[in-house]
Amino acid sequence: MSKEKRKIEVCLSPALFPYFEDPGANVVVVDILRATSAVVTAFMNGVEKIIPVGTLEEAKAFKEKGYMVAAERDGIVRPFADFGNSPYNFTRERVEGKDIVYSTTNGTQAIHEASKCSNVVIGAYLNISAVSEWLIKEGKDVIILCAAWKNKMNLEDTLFAGALSEMILKQENYYTICDSVHAAIDLYQVARKDILGYIEKAAQRERLRKNKLDDVIGYCHTFDLTDIIPILEDNYLVPLRT
Amino acid sequence: MSKEKRKIEVCLSPALFPYFEDPGANVVVVDILRATSAVVTAFMNGVEKIIPVGTLEEAKAFKEKGYMVAAERDGIVRPFADFGNSPYNFTRERVEGKDIVYSTTNGTQAIHEASKCSNVVIGAYLNISAVSEWLIKEGKDVIILCAAWKNKMNLEDTLFAGALSEMILKQENYYTICDSVHAAIDLYQVARKDILGYIEKAAQRERLRKNKLDDVIGYCHTFDLTDIIPILEDNYLVPLRT
Repeated sequence: MSKEKRKIEVCLSPALFPYFEDPGANVVVVDILRATSAVVTAFMNGVEKIIPVGTLEEAKAFKEKGYMVAAERDGIVRPFADFGNSPYNFTRERVEGKDIVYSTTNGTQAIHEASKCSNVVIGAYLNISAVSEWLIKEGKDVIILCAAWKNKMNLEDTLFAGALSEMILKQENYYTICDSVHAAIDLYQVARKDILGYIEKAAQRERLRKNKLDDVIGYCHTFDLTDIIPILEDNYLVPLRT
Repeated sequence: MSKEKRKIEVCLSPALFPYFEDPGANVVVVDILRATSAVVTAFMNGVEKIIPVGTLEEAKAFKEKGYMVAAERDGIVRPFADFGNSPYNFTRERVEGKDIVYSTTNGTQAIHEASKCSNVVIGAYLNISAVSEWLIKEGKDVIILCAAWKNKMNLEDTLFAGALSEMILKQENYYTICDSVHAAIDLYQVARKDILGYIEKAAQRERLRKNKLDDVIGYCHTFDLTDIIPILEDNYLVPLRT
């Protein structure tokens, strides 16, 4: 671990990521409802590799080549896809030992934005402590990149950013001068006693309810079901080998 | 006042403004420390017109034509300018009856971003109740555009956005489905009992301290010193005639 003090920042939207100029940072991409929760779940269930693609055209091209494809926009599964991005779709029966192509409204674009930095890992409540411990062990600067909703900040990713920031800032070799970190931590403090109650006012909560996709809200806010950390290697997500 | 329900949104950074597609909205631009606090102060002291310009080149060109110019970058007055953007610079002796050209790090760019919408007004704690009442009387959608810091969200503008959102949402014909509004209101609730204490952790607080420009923090967080609302007409800010 480096003895130099390292900074932590929170980026509330992929559209703001270009203003965070720190190519040496490790980036945690987060899309709690539901992309990164689904990716972590897929690895929990033995997926071999996830290929994140930004556009539906790319996803479709992979499908035509015979890949299994998870693709949605605005929470709705695309007709050509095998399934959408509910974590519950990524069952062991379906995904174990397989490569899956994955494209979502916000999550996969955020991964591509982040890929210019040192390492890109996938964060969710499901693996939050493992991610925190790995970041601290790495000892690099940290940027938590919220996938947001069509580039507008969202509450659920911001709360997660607050929870993770708080864990990391307990280490004395981390500091922050980033207002978004303070905001995320303070919002997490407001919400922490009843996160699911707090999330009721989130726009995405309402979207999922409307589309009858809200069965996963509780699951997506469950802490530490796994130690697996998906990491971007070349253009694929694979489980980090520590 | 329209009977149709109107929405309110908060945009945390000028870089996110393109994702708020509501040309019929009234936009409140806010840069509490210190641009919009200074603009409101200038009108309190009788300035005739403020010409906001985005680049230092434009500001310099106006200076060469004989205009009085306020221009800074990163809190530092530019050599060619008459003064920077402390509200205390805009004294009655200096500005009464004059036209002033104004360029700042974040504030003037935000004004230009907003100019594609219905009306653009300048908000600060100094005129917050007047702005709130005018917005409600207008009865249009509202976007509060935070000038932020080099496109990264900042605490001081976000708190103001929370305070103003709260005032407007007390009207039953306003609603929100914008997560940034909820975040801003919740942060304002955390901070409201001791805003100046809360602001201690803001990055801009530290920048101003370092540059010995922090004498204005208390003044910039003073509620309702005036009813004047600066509004953009063509390319100039003038006092709104109500």
